[in-house]
Amino acid sequence: MEQPIRLTKTVAKGGCAAKVEALELRKILSQIRFPTAHPDLMVDGRHFDDAAIYRVSSELALVQTLDFFTPIVDSPHWFGKIAACNALSDVYAMGGRPRTAMAILAFPLATISTEIVRDILQGACDLMSEAKTNLVGGHSIDDDTIKFGLSVTGYVHPDRVWSNQGAKVGDTLILTKPLGTGTWAAALKRDAISEKEMAPVLQSMATLNNVVDHLSDDLLSQIHSATDITGFGFAGHATQMARASNVKLEVWAPRLPQFDQTDHWLREGFLTKAHRTNREYTKDFIESANSLKGWNDQILFDPQTSGGLLLAVQLEAADEVVNELKKNFTATSIVGRVLSGSAGLSIIDRPAPI
Amino acid sequence: MEQPIRLTKTVAKGGCAAKVEALELRKILSQIRFPTAHPDLMVDGRHFDDAAIYRVSSELALVQTLDFFTPIVDSPHWFGKIAACNALSDVYAMGGRPRTAMAILAFPLATISTEIVRDILQGACDLMSEAKTNLVGGHSIDDDTIKFGLSVTGYVHPDRVWSNQGAKVGDTLILTKPLGTGTWAAALKRDAISEKEMAPVLQSMATLNNVVDHLSDDLLSQIHSATDITGFGFAGHATQMARASNVKLEVWAPRLPQFDQTDHWLREGFLTKAHRTNREYTKDFIESANSLKGWNDQILFDPQTSGGLLLAVQLEAADEVVNELKKNFTATSIVGRVLSGSAGLSIIDRPAPI
Repeated sequence: MEQPIRLTKTVAKGGCAAKVEALELRKILSQIRFPTAHPDLMVDGRHFDDAAIYRVSSELALVQTLDFFTPIVDSPHWFGKIAACNALSDVYAMGGRPRTAMAILAFPLATISTEIVRDILQGACDLMSEAKTNLVGGHSIDDDTIKFGLSVTGYVHPDRVWSNQGAKVGDTLILTKPLGTGTWAAALKRDAISEKEMAPVLQSMATLNNVVDHLSDDLLSQIHSATDITGFGFAGHATQMARASNVKLEVWAPRLPQFDQTDHWLREGFLTKAHRTNREYTKDFIESANSLKGWNDQILFDPQTSGGLLLAVQLEAADEVVNELKKNFTATSIVGRVLSGSAGLSIIDRPAPI
Repeated sequence: MEQPIRLTKTVAKGGCAAKVEALELRKILSQIRFPTAHPDLMVDGRHFDDAAIYRVSSELALVQTLDFFTPIVDSPHWFGKIAACNALSDVYAMGGRPRTAMAILAFPLATISTEIVRDILQGACDLMSEAKTNLVGGHSIDDDTIKFGLSVTGYVHPDRVWSNQGAKVGDTLILTKPLGTGTWAAALKRDAISEKEMAPVLQSMATLNNVVDHLSDDLLSQIHSATDITGFGFAGHATQMARASNVKLEVWAPRLPQFDQTDHWLREGFLTKAHRTNREYTKDFIESANSLKGWNDQILFDPQTSGGLLLAVQLEAADEVVNELKKNFTATSIVGRVLSGSAGLSIIDRPAPI
């Protein structure tokens, strides 16, 4: 029997780990003369938000985001689901609901069968059905390596946009999915595990960050800021929130949810270049307590593919938000709190007395 | 002095010639179970329109399109302009005006300097400024070859959408730009010409298909159908219009505008794979008069990058539309007419008596 093509073997880097690093990107973007911003552009890319917000009327704004990457898993169907999920989730991270999507598809015509392409697209369409989102177009290109993703447009009320700028001193930090997809994907790519053993990680990466449909309007109004954790890792995206909101995020390290065995893979050295560049990107904004010496801080920099939401929530509502979200996002955890002080992260080894 | 990197030498195929061929794509898409179409989805990808239309209200619909490709020219700034122009023009092809854009960027971090990336982005931003469109985000990826493009959203009134389905028997066919970018790009890539000698072609590829701002409302209402001519060539996109509108398009071959020397490059054999696949894609839908023997029909299949609009216009308004458009699109020409009969193209060697 012919060996099936393993998608992860066709690329050098998989998933969000293939993202161009943040420092490099900032440098390039700082040199560009951008078109004059239209007054309806409510949120652009300046604060590294997950998506842009463009006001259509006093009742409606568009949430727009675009994401694509190389295979992070071997099964085309799972890859399609995860890539679609990762892109759709950026809309949820802004408090919106996705409506339309366009596919971005690159694949080597000569070596990849159309069945693989079909399965990738079907996986993506399955997730879009779940998100009640229409595939309205796209573009495909003959390329050396497989890439897939979506450009997504969603709707949000202009007064109910979440951004990474809204975290308030006193807020509780909540994370909705376990960390560790980066090191798990590295272990898969280097044959330390099979895709089957990775089932909980696949399932998590294919879970939409749709919290808006699972919380009451009252609880939703208690969420002051949100971002999803993707290629720049927990540290990268949390730092972006801290800087955009001009607050200090105190992170209770042992409370960060991780997939089982994640610490093992990290200690075994299943790392990506992004572990290093994410650390570099955030190094001036992180202070760690000395007592953290026994704790493996690599998890902070692990590049997530389709990771969870980091929410800054009004203290009094935090427990109820967690309880509600646990019904659909079982790993949901309180992972820290928002303090005043220099914008950045403070990593400590236990919850401080409140 | 260090030799500058020639972008076209970094890729096997440039511009829209790298598109996955239409037949292959149709086959894959026919096997997918798509999400249930929302009633607000007015135009989806079924008729191979240039963009999708999604109704927001009775007054407003979104026009959405996505396009990216490998370098078709060597100058990063021109490449950025052309790639942006190509994507933005799909919105104009639906009768809309672009509003927001997200960048799709892939480049080899190791071998391409950030100055090149900056120049590509600046070229794109220059065109977006011209189109009064905001760059609201994007995604970049470390990849073996350079790719750049945009996902664009525009506005259109739901009652004034152009599609490729509206051509009416008796309409006049108008083309707004010369054909031949495919063979010119092939000549550049194979060192038969310099980029400088290609200036008129570059300029044309960087000209927005913005006809909506150059015609009166009355003239705009006389345009029944529109499509832009890109990777599938004049024959491919005209065939799509013929089939979507269920009409026969009579094309007056010698009237098709071409860049100077285009026939020379075609006869010298500066062809791409797309010349062959576009011919294959359309072969069952084209009838040609025998008398065309002296005429080189390769121009019909030449893959265009950022090509012009093909418009089906009410006969009585055609001359005025041409005269108005010539002020900004000097090559604008009447190239045929719409007949009843089996859906497809009829290529003849002169205008028939009307």
